[in-house]
Amino acid sequence: MSLFKAAALAVTIGSLALGGTAIAQEKSYVIGVSVPTADHGWTGGVNFFAQQAVDRLSKAYPNLSFVLTSAPDSTKQAADLEDMVTTRNIDGLVILPGDPDAMTSSIKKVKDAGKWVTVVDRALSQPGIEDLYVAGDNPGLGTTTANYFKEALPDGGNIVILRGAPIPIDAQRVDAFMAGIEGTDIKVLDSQFANWNRDDGYKIMQDFLTKYDKIDAVWAQDDDTLVGVLKALKEAGRDKEMWSVGGAGMNQIIKMVEAGDPAVPVDVSYNPNMVATAIDLTALHFVAGAQVDGRFIINSTLITKDNAAEFDYENTPF
Amino acid sequence: MSLFKAAALAVTIGSLALGGTAIAQEKSYVIGVSVPTADHGWTGGVNFFAQQAVDRLSKAYPNLSFVLTSAPDSTKQAADLEDMVTTRNIDGLVILPGDPDAMTSSIKKVKDAGKWVTVVDRALSQPGIEDLYVAGDNPGLGTTTANYFKEALPDGGNIVILRGAPIPIDAQRVDAFMAGIEGTDIKVLDSQFANWNRDDGYKIMQDFLTKYDKIDAVWAQDDDTLVGVLKALKEAGRDKEMWSVGGAGMNQIIKMVEAGDPAVPVDVSYNPNMVATAIDLTALHFVAGAQVDGRFIINSTLITKDNAAEFDYENTPF
Repeated sequence: MSLFKAAALAVTIGSLALGGTAIAQEKSYVIGVSVPTADHGWTGGVNFFAQQAVDRLSKAYPNLSFVLTSAPDSTKQAADLEDMVTTRNIDGLVILPGDPDAMTSSIKKVKDAGKWVTVVDRALSQPGIEDLYVAGDNPGLGTTTANYFKEALPDGGNIVILRGAPIPIDAQRVDAFMAGIEGTDIKVLDSQFANWNRDDGYKIMQDFLTKYDKIDAVWAQDDDTLVGVLKALKEAGRDKEMWSVGGAGMNQIIKMVEAGDPAVPVDVSYNPNMVATAIDLTALHFVAGAQVDGRFIINSTLITKDNAAEFDYENTPF
Repeated sequence: MSLFKAAALAVTIGSLALGGTAIAQEKSYVIGVSVPTADHGWTGGVNFFAQQAVDRLSKAYPNLSFVLTSAPDSTKQAADLEDMVTTRNIDGLVILPGDPDAMTSSIKKVKDAGKWVTVVDRALSQPGIEDLYVAGDNPGLGTTTANYFKEALPDGGNIVILRGAPIPIDAQRVDAFMAGIEGTDIKVLDSQFANWNRDDGYKIMQDFLTKYDKIDAVWAQDDDTLVGVLKALKEAGRDKEMWSVGGAGMNQIIKMVEAGDPAVPVDVSYNPNMVATAIDLTALHFVAGAQVDGRFIINSTLITKDNAAEFDYENTPF
């Protein structure tokens, strides 16, 4: 029996119970959406795009409703999940786990309760729990960035790298970047962990500027880090000496790219609206009975002056 | 400028032209959908699910419209694409190319004309043309099937294999299956190309039955082929001697699995409704400005008595 037949049957039973007076209506579904609290720019975007998807889908499909929660830590996020299953009676869950290792067992409980599970961005520590995985392309972010560096520095040059945090996502990006520039005359002077953080980006770039007289370009990997880098460059009066590339698609950076600012010639996407796509695909499972269990990896696209408009979302907080 | 701002601007200009009398409305988009004519069961499903998605999305998003065409060959499919670009003024294309090699240059022309391109199922002969690729998991189909064979034949047994056609999809499936049963006592007596075809399945199975006295199980890889296999088994009076597994999710087979028929204990999905998912994601790009360029691989799921209902689509021709 398909979802559609199940719906038809439910209506039939309902009609009988009401003495045949009920009019036919579609079965309703509740989708839980759990995301981290907006503790930095990117998660601010996640919250914004999740809310936008919930609003749009509620309007497009009146038989769908949503429970959207955000959590500052794993304790709260686990409690949200338990509440969704036990009292909100969700049919499916879309989750961007703040700490995927800590959340794995809570998410497994949702799956074991027979609910659909979509995981966004951060892979769980145990494979095979989720029905659908939606994420950005981390190795692709490194490769796309390396390709730009090679093109922009055809004769080589000195660069510095501000890494993220010492977790697999960072390693995937950096390994792909290093493989991409292999065999060129691009020389990595230094590389430090800036934790995808603005203040760390500022301090580390100050340090790099003290240590190195000639830097041609900076790979900051992340737009939050990049904002710190740009501040350090400006304060040191060296902002005309080099260009910098971040990553993610923060609106402030997109606008610089769009304006043709030579300090930030391009950006590379790691789009927080992947959460909206995950919500949409999950909705599709319920409203259309579509088979959407699988793995959707969204490109890390080079954002230039030419296509920046596509990434300049109105009213975004990120 | 985002899609939303572009829309707002278009409305502003329109309002001025009409002397300020026009009311605000969302920008409209036209999506072309091109699929092969229903020449066998699976493409019948593709046409059915494409039409269903077009109907649902036209209702959910009134600013979307669609041009849906089906083509018996590459000449017609190429002509459909040219018409979509030159006279129907599409904003994006979703295509399941009948012959991906023959269609690659036509699809590249659509991309070069600045249109969004989503390719479904069959990879083009040149990488990097499409924005979005949506397909089933071909190695996964082999692996999932092999896992079932291992579980159902823990002490080994004699099996025969009916392959598809000699193209990469078949090789991916068969290689993964063979890797999956490696090291077990499952013995492959014979393997022949049945071209995902009912008549070929019938003839090849007749031949296998003549040649081999003791067969424990059949891997037909495809449900059309499986229908031919079952016919041969029945006619030979050997339908109680062995069980068979196809692939794709044909409704007739799903119903046998759902009913617990020992002749067909399970099926493995390769769902023609992947075309609907591709249309939905493409629509999302236009209605929500979501970043959906990337690669979505839909699982090849084991379909058992327990979950067969999810794959039993009402009114499907496949």
